[in-house]
Amino acid sequence: MRAEIVSVGTELLLGQIVDTNAAKLGQELSALGIAVYRRTTVGDNHDRLLTALRAAIADNDIVITIGGLGPTMDDITRDVLAEAMGDTLHRDEKIAHRLEAFFRARGIQMVESNLNQAMVPTHGRPLDNPNGTAPGLLFEKDRKIGIALPGPPSEFIPMVENHVVPYLRSKTGTTTIRSRVLRICNMGESLVEHSIKDLMLGSNPTVAPYAKTGEVHLRVSAKADDPETADRMVEERVRQIVERLGEHVYGFDDEPMEVAVVRLLTERLLTVATAESCTGGMVAARITDVAGSSQVFPGGVVSYSNAAKSDLLAVPAALVDAHGAVSPEVAGAMANGARNRFGSDFGIGITGIAGPDGGTPEKPVGLVYIAVASTRGVRVEKSVFLGRRADVRYRSAQLALVMLRDAILDRDKLTGVN
Amino acid sequence: MRAEIVSVGTELLLGQIVDTNAAKLGQELSALGIAVYRRTTVGDNHDRLLTALRAAIADNDIVITIGGLGPTMDDITRDVLAEAMGDTLHRDEKIAHRLEAFFRARGIQMVESNLNQAMVPTHGRPLDNPNGTAPGLLFEKDRKIGIALPGPPSEFIPMVENHVVPYLRSKTGTTTIRSRVLRICNMGESLVEHSIKDLMLGSNPTVAPYAKTGEVHLRVSAKADDPETADRMVEERVRQIVERLGEHVYGFDDEPMEVAVVRLLTERLLTVATAESCTGGMVAARITDVAGSSQVFPGGVVSYSNAAKSDLLAVPAALVDAHGAVSPEVAGAMANGARNRFGSDFGIGITGIAGPDGGTPEKPVGLVYIAVASTRGVRVEKSVFLGRRADVRYRSAQLALVMLRDAILDRDKLTGVN
Repeated sequence: MRAEIVSVGTELLLGQIVDTNAAKLGQELSALGIAVYRRTTVGDNHDRLLTALRAAIADNDIVITIGGLGPTMDDITRDVLAEAMGDTLHRDEKIAHRLEAFFRARGIQMVESNLNQAMVPTHGRPLDNPNGTAPGLLFEKDRKIGIALPGPPSEFIPMVENHVVPYLRSKTGTTTIRSRVLRICNMGESLVEHSIKDLMLGSNPTVAPYAKTGEVHLRVSAKADDPETADRMVEERVRQIVERLGEHVYGFDDEPMEVAVVRLLTERLLTVATAESCTGGMVAARITDVAGSSQVFPGGVVSYSNAAKSDLLAVPAALVDAHGAVSPEVAGAMANGARNRFGSDFGIGITGIAGPDGGTPEKPVGLVYIAVASTRGVRVEKSVFLGRRADVRYRSAQLALVMLRDAILDRDKLTGVN
Repeated sequence: MRAEIVSVGTELLLGQIVDTNAAKLGQELSALGIAVYRRTTVGDNHDRLLTALRAAIADNDIVITIGGLGPTMDDITRDVLAEAMGDTLHRDEKIAHRLEAFFRARGIQMVESNLNQAMVPTHGRPLDNPNGTAPGLLFEKDRKIGIALPGPPSEFIPMVENHVVPYLRSKTGTTTIRSRVLRICNMGESLVEHSIKDLMLGSNPTVAPYAKTGEVHLRVSAKADDPETADRMVEERVRQIVERLGEHVYGFDDEPMEVAVVRLLTERLLTVATAESCTGGMVAARITDVAGSSQVFPGGVVSYSNAAKSDLLAVPAALVDAHGAVSPEVAGAMANGARNRFGSDFGIGITGIAGPDGGTPEKPVGLVYIAVASTRGVRVEKSVFLGRRADVRYRSAQLALVMLRDAILDRDKLTGVN
């Protein structure tokens, strides 16, 4: 089966929001073995949306729209999808009553337009939305499937997982595409490709490389009549690549570096604490984004001021005076300070100039020192990252996590643990 | 003039990456008054990319592709765009030499396929890419413009700003669309729309509402023959809306809550410090994402462990024992602790249960206490956020910033400053 995703909203075309929903839906469809050959984005305009939907319905078995189900005047997806599917809408009194009760319970006066959200397909049914007022719509007409979902991710994501995926699973045939992503650090894209060139030949499984900020991803996909066979084909190729690239492979699928690091620490009963200046808490925020991180992360300090560096991290004021706050010496002292303060096995210290101001010829914007402290001492790396403030900060946080991983693996080699 | 954006990459269709580049480009094109009626995403497949590009070229004056210019086998955009434009490519020896020098300087052996990146249009020219090896391509043929840009954002964004925007500005006629976004807090979408219904009528300027997590945005757009007139029309409507909604309007355009808060603090020479448990540094990271935040933010503590709460923030262990780490009392003590520790005017304290584990019937996942301390004392709010770990954390950080803004504005009312 083949599907097209149609995202609706002028704010998407104007770039005022980023379409994370379409990515989520793409993941789920490909996991079901449903091919997505095209994704289209159009604005809140009747004629252009109708044209896009008609083309999508003609070329595909399934069309899924995202957005445009709200209560306001520019929310037109409900009506236009019905028109493109050749179907009509009618008011569902149960949904209308639920809407009225929703507004009454909150003491808000219901506006007439809110009742648009009670309109449902004649050939199809509404899809329950427990996190918002707009139900989704499912059309089944002339052997085509049309699905309309609301745009807010907190409503969209549960509806995809709880309604769309189970429904489509019941409709798909037996061909399955399965894929995994290998995540690789400390190695560039060309070198990765060069190292596994022979493993990238052939059309089933396929191996495709993607350059990311500070890492490289390899997607391995296989097609088979049943998921077990497809999985086996993927796993065999993944095993060959891991054998070739060794510890450069730090993780899989949608698990970023912080997940790998928290897992390594958890398995070894080790802990890390952070002392961040230019990254301002980003490393701590990434570590604590991982469920269960409280076992490995007692805490951190964001020491933006020099006073905070000396008060909370015991970085000697004389060290800052002698070398400047952005120096390898201060980065190392911050890492040690975090390690001592929180009694952790590892300490991370980051100090740099994220910009846009504050650079000098000797210490330009983008200069960052990152230190990792452990029982073996401190390793400090100097980097000059190109890009804007957000880029410098992101790359710094990423490198700090990679260096922490290196330190954990180095410790394994010394202690014989693996 | 009209443009279509064509994003190229199977990883986009599979949802393995989110298309932030297309959003950035949409912003820049609309600022130039270039209408984007459609955005298309296709995979790394010759025939489907060619079909999409031909349709885009037929319907528009300008087609801009994103991605698929890398050195690997599945990077086909360069060739297919040339084919769709009816143009040919030839090797630019200067670029070829530069590529060779690039690899030599890094001691990396150049692979033959790297030289694909030296191919340039016959009718057109390469676009310089200082942050990567793939130059962009500009085709000008049969009164149509085709532009190919690389996918990594660190290469894409500077090329859009430094090459594409100046070039297209020289090509656009006189009609301009200008728009601004008003950002609104402490007020829901329906109520916003209800309050300004009369100001949303009419087609020039237009006013469109968007519900966001924890806030509402209103986009005001106007079309005119010159930018000054369009700006005036936008500003007049913005003024009317601000008059109606008052201090619910916290900011404009792409400035999130942290920018508004840093500005308010900077103007008043005030400071804030943070003590974060379940948000793990996200509030500090958002504040320090703002350039110049070092003037208003001495630092913060991420106190994941109870020991860190007492050692670094002087939260009495007895308080944690009596009420639990997730309690209004501890949130308040954390806010006061941050304020005292860093000597700041305001202190933020956040403690909660982000999930997925750790909830109990009395203290469920999603329960968060947020406190803001000032000279006037401490305000603590209890929330139970729905959603996953990342949602609970994001909403907590957002509410903390909104509460900080409330506290600054309350202080203004008391001191008579405005």
